[in-house]
Amino acid sequence: MRTLKLTVAYDGTRYAGWQIQRRNGERRPTIQDTMERALARILQESVKVVGSGRTDAGVHALAQVAHITTRSSMPCRRLLRAVNHVLPLDIAVSRIEDADPAFHARFSARRKSYRYRLFTGAVVPPFIRPYVHHVRARLNVALMRREAAALRGRHDFRAFARAGGARATTRTIYAIALKRRGQELHLDIEGNGFLRTMVRSLAGTLIDIGRGQLPAGTVRRMLTRRTRRLAGTTAPATGLSLLRVTYGTRGTR
Amino acid sequence: MRTLKLTVAYDGTRYAGWQIQRRNGERRPTIQDTMERALARILQESVKVVGSGRTDAGVHALAQVAHITTRSSMPCRRLLRAVNHVLPLDIAVSRIEDADPAFHARFSARRKSYRYRLFTGAVVPPFIRPYVHHVRARLNVALMRREAAALRGRHDFRAFARAGGARATTRTIYAIALKRRGQELHLDIEGNGFLRTMVRSLAGTLIDIGRGQLPAGTVRRMLTRRTRRLAGTTAPATGLSLLRVTYGTRGTR
Repeated sequence: MRTLKLTVAYDGTRYAGWQIQRRNGERRPTIQDTMERALARILQESVKVVGSGRTDAGVHALAQVAHITTRSSMPCRRLLRAVNHVLPLDIAVSRIEDADPAFHARFSARRKSYRYRLFTGAVVPPFIRPYVHHVRARLNVALMRREAAALRGRHDFRAFARAGGARATTRTIYAIALKRRGQELHLDIEGNGFLRTMVRSLAGTLIDIGRGQLPAGTVRRMLTRRTRRLAGTTAPATGLSLLRVTYGTRGTR
Repeated sequence: MRTLKLTVAYDGTRYAGWQIQRRNGERRPTIQDTMERALARILQESVKVVGSGRTDAGVHALAQVAHITTRSSMPCRRLLRAVNHVLPLDIAVSRIEDADPAFHARFSARRKSYRYRLFTGAVVPPFIRPYVHHVRARLNVALMRREAAALRGRHDFRAFARAGGARATTRTIYAIALKRRGQELHLDIEGNGFLRTMVRSLAGTLIDIGRGQLPAGTVRRMLTRRTRRLAGTTAPATGLSLLRVTYGTRGTR
């Protein structure tokens, strides 16, 4: 059996997220399901696509990583061309490579980077509409940066997680930055992993602080008291993109 | 009566172009029609939206310019907010300003700039899919640049126009450049006006030269002999965007 590592970009707008889901017995449109069907059709065998993690409904990815195992000996280049031919235009596999049999898209992942895009101008250009969250309020960006800095390092992020989610809620944030890009503000964050809706909760809390609806020091208090009651609104999925997933050097041969 | 100048961005994907069209008595979806309906609803009067020119089906605009005349005294800021509230998300008015009564979006226009985007990588990211033309062949960019340079200046562009189009086919190209932008190649062109499908015909001819399907010197021959028989394929609408329209300084008060 070969293990193949796939790098995938997708526009999450019309999907119920990455992971296969059923509602009333019906499969809902998900990235994983769409990819499994496309690969199965080409490889003529049933295929399980294992992602580095799930992305929620409406969240995008520039370079999600997944792996499959297959009996097929089809060259990676040919499979890449074939799968993109079959996939809908809002999912594109940018790379397929042979990986070490020990490679696992989820368990081998070391770091993940996300970007949350805020549009702060008056009118959102149609071309970026599905990829940004439009914030009309004036934002105190300097204050947001100071609050964001408190997130760096190893913390219990329970206050930023959904209730009833994972039990282990400690994560490490390696880098976090708030960058002005024309009429946009990008919240870039890299960590060893993220709890469900954590990035959107971080973004929403920082926005609420920036617009003066939550006091300075909120982030630090949330990390210390570990209670969701202090959190701001969870920012909508539309602004969020998974930028990249980083693996150890031995992950891919 | 007030004259208002409007700057508009749109994703042309699902429209039959800028200009109102009927087919079998039915209005087809066009930018102009969609804007007229939205403005009429807000201003409570019938409105004619006059664009700087038409864009074809599927062509996009970053900053198309149009004007309307109205009896309304509604402040521009309020009208801007109201119209964007009513318009679908793939059309966004970025600016509304009071203009001189002599201002005419079409007749006062001095220059127009277009960009034709070629994607030359293996896999098109889903986010830019509707805005680029995917060219898989290897392109001789240096040769394309030399050919493009021949287009600069005042020429009879009949060979690049649709048969049976405008009678006056002389135009001036002020600037033309082919720029590498990551995996994209941008053909940027500014002129005092363009014949119907002229930019797409220019782009298509340059692509065919770049991939070796048309010989060097084709552009110059087309300009001299003024015959369409020498032209390359007309490139698809999806790659084309109207970037901006320039007016004289007295165009807007």
